[in-house]
Amino acid sequence: MQGVDGHERVFDWLDTEAEKRAKAGLTRKLRPRAAASDELDLAGNDYLGLARDKRVAGAAAAAALRWGAGSTGSRLVTGSTELHTELEHELARFCGFQAALVFSSGFTANLGAVTTLSGGESAIVTDKYIHASLIEGCRLARTDVAAVAHADPDAVKHALSTRRKDRALVVTDSVFSVDGDLAPLNQLSQVCREHNAALLVDDAHGLGVLGEGGRGALNAAGLAGEPDIVATVTLSKSLGAQGGAVLGPRRVIKHLVETARSFIFDTGLAPAAAAAALAALGVLKSEPDLPQKVLNNSTRLADHLRGNGFRVSEPQAAVVSVQAPTPEDAVEWAARCAEQGVRVGCFRPPSVPDGISRLRLTARADLTDGDIDTAVKVISECAPPSATS
Amino acid sequence: MQGVDGHERVFDWLDTEAEKRAKAGLTRKLRPRAAASDELDLAGNDYLGLARDKRVAGAAAAAALRWGAGSTGSRLVTGSTELHTELEHELARFCGFQAALVFSSGFTANLGAVTTLSGGESAIVTDKYIHASLIEGCRLARTDVAAVAHADPDAVKHALSTRRKDRALVVTDSVFSVDGDLAPLNQLSQVCREHNAALLVDDAHGLGVLGEGGRGALNAAGLAGEPDIVATVTLSKSLGAQGGAVLGPRRVIKHLVETARSFIFDTGLAPAAAAAALAALGVLKSEPDLPQKVLNNSTRLADHLRGNGFRVSEPQAAVVSVQAPTPEDAVEWAARCAEQGVRVGCFRPPSVPDGISRLRLTARADLTDGDIDTAVKVISECAPPSATS
Repeated sequence: MQGVDGHERVFDWLDTEAEKRAKAGLTRKLRPRAAASDELDLAGNDYLGLARDKRVAGAAAAAALRWGAGSTGSRLVTGSTELHTELEHELARFCGFQAALVFSSGFTANLGAVTTLSGGESAIVTDKYIHASLIEGCRLARTDVAAVAHADPDAVKHALSTRRKDRALVVTDSVFSVDGDLAPLNQLSQVCREHNAALLVDDAHGLGVLGEGGRGALNAAGLAGEPDIVATVTLSKSLGAQGGAVLGPRRVIKHLVETARSFIFDTGLAPAAAAAALAALGVLKSEPDLPQKVLNNSTRLADHLRGNGFRVSEPQAAVVSVQAPTPEDAVEWAARCAEQGVRVGCFRPPSVPDGISRLRLTARADLTDGDIDTAVKVISECAPPSATS
Repeated sequence: MQGVDGHERVFDWLDTEAEKRAKAGLTRKLRPRAAASDELDLAGNDYLGLARDKRVAGAAAAAALRWGAGSTGSRLVTGSTELHTELEHELARFCGFQAALVFSSGFTANLGAVTTLSGGESAIVTDKYIHASLIEGCRLARTDVAAVAHADPDAVKHALSTRRKDRALVVTDSVFSVDGDLAPLNQLSQVCREHNAALLVDDAHGLGVLGEGGRGALNAAGLAGEPDIVATVTLSKSLGAQGGAVLGPRRVIKHLVETARSFIFDTGLAPAAAAAALAALGVLKSEPDLPQKVLNNSTRLADHLRGNGFRVSEPQAAVVSVQAPTPEDAVEWAARCAEQGVRVGCFRPPSVPDGISRLRLTARADLTDGDIDTAVKVISECAPPSATS
């Protein structure tokens, strides 16, 4: 034990940890961007290009002036405005669910949904590649959690049939964020129904891209609004704003309002973000072809890169991933692309569940064919030699 | 096990839970507010009245138009703007810390700080009344957690001296959110230093109210910027916006950027909220007397209510709490006040750590003496008979 003078060394262990990360090629740095930029962005999750759309940004600005910069409290105290209610009604109606509840982020929405729909009397069965926020939710649920093989309904079936709890919650992403592949939602739902389990689907990367007019992966699977299905979405990707939401049967939403700690003990979403998401839903309704443009662009991008010899995922939504030999290669590759004016995502452990580092590209609806050709050219020129097979 | 047709009953247990809560008087309902209202608000956490200040709301609106409605990605991908950097510099400078990191909410900031500064090799010792988000952080840290007596440095000392881990993190609120009482920060820091532990302080209710010009409880205690002290704050209370931040030594902030899951896997704060918080810091700097108005108002409010016979906390920041006989009494009391045009907070289990239900009042800087007299009159007239002693 150290004396009073030792307090300057209390965080020395952080330096040791930083050295370990540096040696493993896992250093991360913030790279703030300017308001105006000539960069070609293939890294952000603004899939429909709506974050800077005047209708969406204008709605955010107007709401800040009308309602204030913040919501001033928990949603259960002063943090609920009529704007939040309207957004919840519109989200539920658009996606085809009975009700919706808006959270301050997709992260807290996932914490709330997982913890309140499981608990000590319920087993949880998850795809092992689910998003980190769902994993945190599982840890907070303090019950039996089985993380089974990726996109494998038989593995889920086995876990459900051998569970020791009466109730069960199956948890999956609809579109997996790293490779952009789809979960087998219909088969998963069938297995859940055979084993009396609820199904919770994180549709963060499906809303605005999949389903009729962008109504999401559960609409595409014909499962939206079913009495045993709950979805979570973000307002910060296709809708260009900030926040998250849970969609489901009315009694699920009531249960969340009354028991979700990440809802009750958090300040409500800022009015500007709620208004922006609402405006983005309006754009989606008036331009139902927007989502198809994303899919066209991701297919074109993947095809061209695959043609150049890279190991490329089969895109089923906006995300295209390109494997890199090592984390260091991925970092250098992304940095060289940035120097050439193309911003790409660089995903390394722990952000990649299988340990393979990648460039992660997002094919926004507003990319032109010329943008995609430029991106393919730059990514190919900047690649490390061993990136092609 | 049920067959395929049983899926409509998979959430039946939620109705049973709802009935239990109704019987215990713990039903919660969202009560959305309109943009314009004549209500006297003593429930929100907009302590300085800045959420609707034109300088703050105007900055939010301008930022939405300039930067877009959302930040478009994780802070480590495309979600960091120069606006976020400027806010982090200003927050750190204003509060007297080396560095700061902005999160999308105070909730996620607390998750990130607790988990990354503890871990399996560190014991955690907390005041048993800490905020729910800190408790969730402790659960996610998956290590030994001792929750000790409220505001009791000796209890912390005992837990530290009997811990089984080499490292230790002590966690407390500065101002406790329910009663508005203060943690004994100087004694806690002394105990930490004697036992080689780091001190993490949630200053959500201190920033903008305590310390020189509202620089927070750690400034007031002379502990801001110390090498073994980390603070978390919200941008959604005194700063009138949304979001949270961690303040501390540079190496702590670097560690959070590289390892905090609630930072890495969450979309960055919307530019409008970042700009609003930045503008609110500017107001605080130009009007250093604002915080004192909060303290004057909370003292006046508490004195008058105590004079009318209620069991009232001793306010040391913006919060004044008034005990209610039962949860049902608290709900009815608050509802009657709302009918008379005075909005008060109603805190019941699980939001009150000691199980005592309360009206929770916040004394904003912009309340007039007349507002306070009105509030005292209405609260007194609407009280259940057994609320006075």
